[in-house]
Amino acid sequence: MRIVVALGGNALLRRGEPMTAENQRANVKIAAKALASLAEKHELIITHGNGPQIGLLAMQSAAYKEVEEYPLDVLGSQTEGMIGYMIEQELGNILPERHYATLLSMIEVDKNDPAFQSPTKPIGPIYNKEQADVLAKKHQWQYAPDGDGYRRVVPSPQPKKIFETKPIEWLLEKNAIVICAGGGGIPTIYNDSNQLVGVEAVIDKDRASALLAKQLTADFYIMATDVDAVYIHWKQPDQAAIRSASPESLSAYTFTEGSMRPKVEAGCDFAHSSGKTAGIGALEDIQSILQGDTGTQINSKVKNIVLHKQ
Amino acid sequence: MRIVVALGGNALLRRGEPMTAENQRANVKIAAKALASLAEKHELIITHGNGPQIGLLAMQSAAYKEVEEYPLDVLGSQTEGMIGYMIEQELGNILPERHYATLLSMIEVDKNDPAFQSPTKPIGPIYNKEQADVLAKKHQWQYAPDGDGYRRVVPSPQPKKIFETKPIEWLLEKNAIVICAGGGGIPTIYNDSNQLVGVEAVIDKDRASALLAKQLTADFYIMATDVDAVYIHWKQPDQAAIRSASPESLSAYTFTEGSMRPKVEAGCDFAHSSGKTAGIGALEDIQSILQGDTGTQINSKVKNIVLHKQ
Repeated sequence: MRIVVALGGNALLRRGEPMTAENQRANVKIAAKALASLAEKHELIITHGNGPQIGLLAMQSAAYKEVEEYPLDVLGSQTEGMIGYMIEQELGNILPERHYATLLSMIEVDKNDPAFQSPTKPIGPIYNKEQADVLAKKHQWQYAPDGDGYRRVVPSPQPKKIFETKPIEWLLEKNAIVICAGGGGIPTIYNDSNQLVGVEAVIDKDRASALLAKQLTADFYIMATDVDAVYIHWKQPDQAAIRSASPESLSAYTFTEGSMRPKVEAGCDFAHSSGKTAGIGALEDIQSILQGDTGTQINSKVKNIVLHKQ
Repeated sequence: MRIVVALGGNALLRRGEPMTAENQRANVKIAAKALASLAEKHELIITHGNGPQIGLLAMQSAAYKEVEEYPLDVLGSQTEGMIGYMIEQELGNILPERHYATLLSMIEVDKNDPAFQSPTKPIGPIYNKEQADVLAKKHQWQYAPDGDGYRRVVPSPQPKKIFETKPIEWLLEKNAIVICAGGGGIPTIYNDSNQLVGVEAVIDKDRASALLAKQLTADFYIMATDVDAVYIHWKQPDQAAIRSASPESLSAYTFTEGSMRPKVEAGCDFAHSSGKTAGIGALEDIQSILQGDTGTQINSKVKNIVLHKQ
């Protein structure tokens, strides 16, 4: 089978943990172990988030005053190099006989995407009102309340086209393990001179990975996160873990914005248009998500919502 | 022909120029124009330096005090993403119908390489004696006098093996333009547990690119820099630009350490072991370096040193 696995950025740099290179590597080692079991039997494409990492690089870039802060597209490309390096190296330490390719990935978005009118995705550090106002004016950035302060918000447009799909396919044909579409890919648009340029935005990595899985005609798309399944009635007395469901049946429920909702949407998108299965669950369960023993499978052929036994 | 072109890191971020993303991009645009003319007729592999860029990221990383500075291998992987992104995007704007692959590249070095005993390659910011002493003690880093202050020096070991050679070849077979071995590749060694790990070192990018050109059995290896040719008697009244020479004939001369010398050595290495031609010259002259009209060609079949007409 050809399998796309999307790793959460938070799985690689856990909330609350100091954002050191050492901690990142320790988490990547855990992920690599889970991924290696899949890579031994299947064609594997690994994508990953970059939320905490791009936030860190933005703070580092802002802290060094001698050079103007680097734009988001460039910081995104830095995170693709950094996270890809760690994954490639650690997976290579488990399966040294395999070939690896970590590919820089650019994704086209629509410059008329409504997301550009209403930035919602928070990134970078938290500022007080005064600091946020100064930065907003200086860079024409937007800030929104976040916790005790203000945080920059950027648009999260829909991914339209992954530029490197063909090279990815060629590498898969040779049985290479491909790491790509990091951080949801670098968002780019064609400007008025028909030149491709980066934009100050962040593409949701689950959506970008769903598009990749469709373009690569993957047989399975797994979103590996820190929750063991999709739940209905989450955090209510009757909460229950979904074992399998059709995209249609899931549309009756609402899921947590900015967390489970984009995953469910991306899974439904893939399942609906490919006829194949999307899985959502914990990183360490990857193998059993595939078999349907843990996590949530989304597939159009499932009649009703099937719950896990409690 | 299969051609490897190595771009100087300084060609992409010129000395004295503010190190902004905008300036980098402007320089990459110039490079892309020169590269596009080659890509239309030949198989093209692009490598690049990262001296100024890794220095900038090191300073940014050091300026943000909340998280410990990131090690050199990780910073190197960030520069591979960043510079590769700009090259891929700008070349794609000139030749949009082609396929591109920017590949993260790790290179094995020998842990017993004598370079580890005598670090010589300066990186990062200049500190005063006191600051340098504190950092040296804290990280067990070495510092050497540089200009008015002290700068960290790291080992520059010989490249032994490029891990991604096979994927690069597979992509070239499909006529993709490949960008790889950025910054001389990420230096790695096998530790005592036989695990591949990054090391605090910088591989010379001309040497790494020569190894790549050999492994890919390239027909031509061009080092594009900001000087129009290799000169004998450089900066003396009788200085003269070399048009062509054999590796053997060049061994009678000395060239500027840390500047032309590693290029001449890398060119001789490639020419000697492949029987093919290495070229050294200005970025904007790439096409005519290939034809022998400008720049310096190194080839074992050349009998004597041939000079350009003055």
